[in-house]
Amino acid sequence: MAQTMELRSNGEAGRTATGKISIIMFSGTADKFIPLGVITQAAAAMGMDVNVFVTGFALQGFAKQPRDLPFPVEFTSMAPALMQAMKAARVQPWDAMLRQAKELGAKVYACSMMADVMGMKKDDFGDLVDDVVGAATFLQAAEGGQTLCTG
Amino acid sequence: MAQTMELRSNGEAGRTATGKISIIMFSGTADKFIPLGVITQAAAAMGMDVNVFVTGFALQGFAKQPRDLPFPVEFTSMAPALMQAMKAARVQPWDAMLRQAKELGAKVYACSMMADVMGMKKDDFGDLVDDVVGAATFLQAAEGGQTLCTG
Amino acid sequence: MAQTMELRSNGEAGRTATGKISIIMFSGTADKFIPLGVITQAAAAMGMDVNVFVTGFALQGFAKQPRDLPFPVEFTSMAPALMQAMKAARVQPWDAMLRQAKELGAKVYACSMMADVMGMKKDDFGDLVDDVVGAATFLQAAEGGQTLCTG
Repeated sequence: MAQTMELRSNGEAGRTATGKISIIMFSGTADKFIPLGVITQAAAAMGMDVNVFVTGFALQGFAKQPRDLPFPVEFTSMAPALMQAMKAARVQPWDAMLRQAKELGAKVYACSMMADVMGMKKDDFGDLVDDVVGAATFLQAAEGGQTLCTG
Repeated sequence: MAQTMELRSNGEAGRTATGKISIIMFSGTADKFIPLGVITQAAAAMGMDVNVFVTGFALQGFAKQPRDLPFPVEFTSMAPALMQAMKAARVQPWDAMLRQAKELGAKVYACSMMADVMGMKKDDFGDLVDDVVGAATFLQAAEGGQTLCTG
Repeated sequence: MAQTMELRSNGEAGRTATGKISIIMFSGTADKFIPLGVITQAAAAMGMDVNVFVTGFALQGFAKQPRDLPFPVEFTSMAPALMQAMKAARVQPWDAMLRQAKELGAKVYACSMMADVMGMKKDDFGDLVDDVVGAATFLQAAEGGQTLCTG
């Protein structure tokens, strides 16, 4: 499967893009974290500015002691085979991909309002979270770029 | 907790942003309505143009006689504590936040096709809905700005 | 109901928009495919460039032998009536709408990484899929436009 990965990078290598991409994460199901990792890593590797704003149930995935993220119930029967296939294909876990994105400059912000509501302070988040900020701060950082909601 | 709110607004006050943000709402689960309220209110308060296009199961949240919005089943066990914590933190309900956004100029449109399908006419919607329009009308209003889908 | 459709097109006809709209599909529930069809068809008909990037569980909806797409469990009780009402209102199925968008120039890409993971090759996808590409290729195609995630 290392070959698969190489073929993939062959097609992808050397691509660049300008601009800014900002991602709002609020769903806490596991399937949303995989594209978060893939998109942030690809965008940061291409040279884009990347901002992530984490809120709602998604905050739990960024806690220092993260809970296991549930798969959407509609797909739980398929989840174990999918996770095994991702391992076999040497796809990195979402947090490793996001960490690489951060090494390339991506920033991750936790929503201050929902953190307050959930009783979480900056220290309760793992090292993936750069800061705890409000929605207005994030919207200002996102200004003039593309903004995605992963739902 | 009023203090928490004040700290939050201290960090957020005076922030401005230009441009246009458009939000497509089609999921009908309760967790999607909270960020809808937060983002529209923050964006409108910063001076941005805000358009919301409501379709699919989300239309039910805007009915004159709204149904109770279900939480995603993966998180129902956590929902009561979360709702109570939001109340304790004096976080406004999503519709109050959206109403404030509307006072600052935000517009809310219901999707005419799905309203037809669900047998809903303009009169069946509450006062949050400004008009019932088609997807093309919304896309034209969204042109040149950022567009989010809350899933 | 043909009248309804006509009224709708009357309001919508002749609208144009410039620019590019890119849509990331990763959720595999049926309710996400309806707005995919509506938005791509409306945007393509208005003259916009449209790119769709399909990944995660959504890939199954594009297989040559597609599985039945599940509705979100929170809304399964409402799904049969909704589907019947859509038929009665002569709303086209999502794939017919997407096909029309493609005739107007829209492009659909399957995510190469998730296709690998799921053991799907180009031949395993139906004719809606133009190519199997990586995330970086898609982000480059999306550059400078609006990008939506349908969750």
